[in-house]
Parts: sequence; structure tokens; C-alpha cells
Amino acid sequence: MRPVAIIGIGQTKIDEQWEKSIRQIAVEALHAALQNAGRESADGLFVGNMMSGILNSQNNLAPLVASWAGLKVPAVKVDAACGSGGAALRSGLMAVASGELDSALVLGVEKMTDRHPHEVTAALATAADADYEAEMGVSFVGLNALLMRRYMHEYGWKHADFAPFAINAHANAMHNPFARLHHKITLEDFEKSAMIATPVNLLDASPIGDGAAALYLVPADSLRAGTRILIAGSACATDTLAIHDRSDPLFLTAAYKSSREAYRQAGVEPHDIDVFELHDAFTIMSALSLEACGFAERGQGPRLGLDGSITPAGSIPVMTRGGLKARGHPVGATGVYQVVELVQQLRGECGETQISGARIGMAQNLGGSGSTIVTHILKLI
Amino acid sequence: MRPVAIIGIGQTKIDEQWEKSIRQIAVEALHAALQNAGRESADGLFVGNMMSGILNSQNNLAPLVASWAGLKVPAVKVDAACGSGGAALRSGLMAVASGELDSALVLGVEKMTDRHPHEVTAALATAADADYEAEMGVSFVGLNALLMRRYMHEYGWKHADFAPFAINAHANAMHNPFARLHHKITLEDFEKSAMIATPVNLLDASPIGDGAAALYLVPADSLRAGTRILIAGSACATDTLAIHDRSDPLFLTAAYKSSREAYRQAGVEPHDIDVFELHDAFTIMSALSLEACGFAERGQGPRLGLDGSITPAGSIPVMTRGGLKARGHPVGATGVYQVVELVQQLRGECGETQISGARIGMAQNLGGSGSTIVTHILKLI
Repeated sequence: MRPVAIIGIGQTKIDEQWEKSIRQIAVEALHAALQNAGRESADGLFVGNMMSGILNSQNNLAPLVASWAGLKVPAVKVDAACGSGGAALRSGLMAVASGELDSALVLGVEKMTDRHPHEVTAALATAADADYEAEMGVSFVGLNALLMRRYMHEYGWKHADFAPFAINAHANAMHNPFARLHHKITLEDFEKSAMIATPVNLLDASPIGDGAAALYLVPADSLRAGTRILIAGSACATDTLAIHDRSDPLFLTAAYKSSREAYRQAGVEPHDIDVFELHDAFTIMSALSLEACGFAERGQGPRLGLDGSITPAGSIPVMTRGGLKARGHPVGATGVYQVVELVQQLRGECGETQISGARIGMAQNLGGSGSTIVTHILKLI
Repeated sequence: MRPVAIIGIGQTKIDEQWEKSIRQIAVEALHAALQNAGRESADGLFVGNMMSGILNSQNNLAPLVASWAGLKVPAVKVDAACGSGGAALRSGLMAVASGELDSALVLGVEKMTDRHPHEVTAALATAADADYEAEMGVSFVGLNALLMRRYMHEYGWKHADFAPFAINAHANAMHNPFARLHHKITLEDFEKSAMIATPVNLLDASPIGDGAAALYLVPADSLRAGTRILIAGSACATDTLAIHDRSDPLFLTAAYKSSREAYRQAGVEPHDIDVFELHDAFTIMSALSLEACGFAERGQGPRLGLDGSITPAGSIPVMTRGGLKARGHPVGATGVYQVVELVQQLRGECGETQISGARIGMAQNLGGSGSTIVTHILKLI
């Protein structure tokens, strides 16, 4: 396999974009990535999307987006639920790494706010086990509530101990013009927030939204050393779809496996990671991801929030552009947003939340309750 | 890229399998492919599926199927509407060709008959342009009827001239135990068949169904020469999603592009193809595919049916196991069924419809009305 680098990024603001259709926001991000890369087309397009068939009555998204963007190229949709963006990037990466294509556009897109929230909740539940979870009425918030309650019971944390994950995300999103939410929150806000599914309250949970993000990939050997943003590690791992089928539901096995494989490929250890865009769909997921990826001992994830390690000035900055919590979570697009934001960090384009001297970044994208986990490591070399 | 070969195939009978869920038919095909390959696991799983989110409330299919099959491997779903099976094969191929994986399982699966036919018709319409075709009430049969009527007008064919495509498919399916339909039809049956959308009648159209098919891929260099079934060509091309956006709706541009690229990769010409599994969702598509792939002049596709060229004894045998028309069309699975059947031909396992001395086979899988077209060429070497 030949090494692959990212030379272009594009993204739309995450919002309720009722005046635009899914094809319009997709093309907006694609054209931004093309312009950023200084290219007019690419050899192929890989679209990460979860629910266009259900929410937009538009299953056949890849050729639609390609032709609407003016790209007469092979195009395919990759779906790994909320991990679709990361999975699409991996598909594009393999196409360029194998030599099959000499360039690839990777798009993540989701249009969620045109439908009633009840329909969106039901659509999100199709990421869970239809016959043994969703059929019983368990929503995605419900599944995360079960995990969070058990975690608090096992390790003795109280709900407020998870507040720093949300507070840090909101503080960082203030400086990201593409973020959905632009307001700071306090510990008091967190404690007083409306309960959704005990113990998950509104500020534990990430907001959905309409959004699209895009990346432009090329073989790295054509680029000048010292400025290359290389995809140094890429790995996917799976776990059971239903949480009750796992022998240890409080450990994200697929996050462990995919991060270790990505570390191995990149030749790095957790302490080498300068910035980590993790999948904070719910605060409990931040704790579990930090533990599975080797940044905290089992049951000690919340400590990294409480001691400030996760802030831009800390030892393992996370959600530096707002994360899912405040940048927003247009599900199939999220994995691509994460990598766009890593590129911004490695380029030094993040202003107030810039991680000084960032050269190695990691992004981790979860599908379902950790059933598919895709980890990417980028290196500036 | 390293060459990749197919060493295992599996399939279920296509039928109304109301007693089984989607995960069960998927695992049935996967275990058959593993057994056929003489393997116990693989390095990755690629699932082709179009509508599990809509019809089975189960969007997150890949990790579900992986864990249900006992495979703790990276798994991802690839969606190109009715071309999903072919697109999943291409993804698996790139993963093995690139060296990322040393083996891959490719699965195509669709479970369509548990829901009311009206729901299935609406779900199929999500493969068309939601805003400019489906929104106007055009179904997939309707789109093909528009194409067929225009084709008959332009080139002077009458409806009965398309009968040989259906008659050949039904005759061949008699000898395929996995086919949905096991009855011969005559020209009289074809002419008297119930009209669906003029001029498309019931025997122009393929039946849907529940079904799954699987392939096992490995690097070819590990295998003994003379027995290797190599994926010698693989290409994908796209066209506009809406038919009205095409300057020449009666020419399948994406079929032309992807077949020419596959011929180039495989180093063959149309006359070298011993057997061609084409995407006969409707008889008009058989004619258009044969023309775009270089087997007939523009407007002359039906002649290959009328002069017998498409039968097992003819110069370009098609639908040798029944095709979509009689084997059945579980949409996201179809592209994998086609390649399973090519492998059966190259292995000489097709009995009454065996193409004598078959060494080079081609499969072509369409998504939408030709918006995504994936072509594969297999070679026995």
C-alpha cells in the first residue's frame, strides 16, 4: 500500500438547514474541499451517510451527489450507522492506497431536521439491534443511560463528574464558526439540565443537525515533506450490535482493538497523540473511549475531565472544535467532521483552541453503541 | 495492487422466507461460503444491502451480521441501491488487493417480503431521484416503462421482440435450485401477461425476494495456477440519478464506461466473454446493457434474443442461472448472486446450463436506472 495524505477539507455549518436539501449541503462541502485542495475533480467519491433512505426518501445518494457536484466519477455510499463517516474515509483511503484511484473525495452528510423528532429518534434506533433492543422500545439515549448508570454504580462516580466533558466541548465550540451551538455552559447549567433518560440529561447528549464535511485524498509521495498530512493509521473493529450480548458492556472492545491497530500502523503510543477527536455522542462515551484507547485506567475516564487534561491546554485535548456535544452530530457526517478538524489542528488553523505544535492527531468514530469503531491517526510530516 | 481470487461461494434460495429474519439468511450464506472456501473466518466483511433500514428497521447491519456469524472482524455496509452487491465486492476487492486484509468475505443480502408490496414499491423508489422523480409518483417500473416505450418508438421494435430475454431466463432457472421461479414460459405467456406500466408487463419485470449470497476473497498468488478464479477486472461508473438529466437516456453511459475499464484491466474484448450475467431487472435493461457493453449495435439488443445468441448454446449466453427475471432480485444481494453464478460456470458446476469451456465471465450490476454501474470480469487461469 502507498501512503495517502489529505490535501483538502470542506464543511458546512451544522444547523437546521430547512432551506436546503441534502444534495445542496453535500455539494457545498464537496466544492469547499475541492477549492481547498486546488483541484477541479477527483477519481472517485465515497459518501458516508446513515439515514438518507429513511429521513430523506433518498437511498441512492452517491451518484446523486456526484452528478449534482458535476463529478462524473465512480461513487458509492458507505454505511456504518453513526460511524459511516469514518468508514467512508477508510474506503476512500483503501482505493487510493491500493493504486486503484489516484485521488478520492470523501464526503460525510446527514440531513435530519426536516422530519419530526419522533421520526428521527426512531431512525436513530435502527442503529441498535432491531429485534432485541429497538423492538423493546429502547432508544439510543436509553441504551447510553443504561451504560452510564451501570458505570456510575461500578466505579462510584456521581453525575456531576461527567460535566467537564460537556463544559469543555461548549467552550471550544465558541471558536468554531461551523459548530451548531455557540454558548458556554457551567457546572450549574449541567446539574440543572432537563433529564432525558436517567441519568442522561440534555447536557450529556449531543444535538443532531444537518451538515456535510469532505476530505480530498491523494498519494503522499507527490507532496513536499514537512507539509504532508498523512493518514498514518486506519483501523476498523466490530463488537456485538446488542449491548446485552457483550460480556463486559463497560469496555469498548472495538475501540481498544481499532486504536491499538492504528497506533501500530502509525508507530505511536497514546502519549504521542497531541489531539484526540473522540465520539462524545453522550458524556459516558467520552469516558469509555478514553479508557479503551489507553488514556485512562478502567473506570477512571472522568478524572481526565475533572483534572483539566482534556482541555486545549491539557495533556490529551479532546473535542477541540466542540465535539459531537457542541459542534453537533449529523450522524453519518460526524466521522468526516472529526478528521476535517484534525487537519485544521495540524495546519495550525484553530485560533483560540489551537493545540500548540500539534503534529499527531487521532479521530475515533463510533457506529451504534460501539458496534463498529473506526480509528484514524493523522501525522504532519 | 495484488491480484485477488474467489475461493468460496454461498447462497440461499431466493423466496418469501417469512420464517427467517435478515440476520439468519445472511449468516446462512456466509457459513456456506466459509465452508465452500474451507475457512473458519476472514479478515473483514463487506455487506451489500440497500433497504434494511427502511424494510427491516435494521440500519446497522454489518456488525450485526458479523457477530451473528461468529466473526469478530471489521465489517462495513456498502450501498449503491440495486448495485450494492457489486459495490460491496469492489470494496472487499480493494481491501485485499491493497494488502490491508489477507482475506475478505463479501455478502449481499436483502429481506423484502415481510412488508406490504406498497411499502416495498415505495422503498424501491428511494433508488430514484427523490425530489424530481419519486416525488412525482414515478415508480421504478414506471421509469423502465418510459425507457422501453421510447426505445420501441426510436428503433421500431414491438413488445414481443423482448420476449426471448424472459423466456431464456425462465428456461435456465429451471436448473438452478436457488432460483425463485421454476416454471418455463412461452411467447404466448409473455404476450398475454398482465400489464403493469405500459409497455412493461409482469413477464418483463423481475420478482423481488428474500435472499443472501456470499463470496470469499484471497490474494491469488497463494493458489495453484490453472484453478484460480481471478477477479481480472473491476470497475464502477456513475451517471445522473434522474433519467431526465441524461442527454441520451437510451444509452447506459455508466455501463459503457465501467465495461470498457473492466475489459482494459482484464485485457479482453467483448467477444472473449464466455458468459455474461447482466442486470435484467426489466427486459429493456437487457437490451440496453448488451448494447452499452459492445455486444450489439445501438438499438439492436433485442436481435440477440431473437436469433438465440443469448441462450446457453449461443455466442453470448446471459442469465444462465435465471438472471434477475427468474432467479429473483433481492436488490442489494443481486450483484453478489451474479458473481457466485459466474464462479459456478467457471468451475463447471452448472449442469444443464453449463457453458462448455467457460473461462471468462462478466457480471454487471446496476444501481438505480443505471446511475451506478459496477462491472466485474472473472478469469479461470
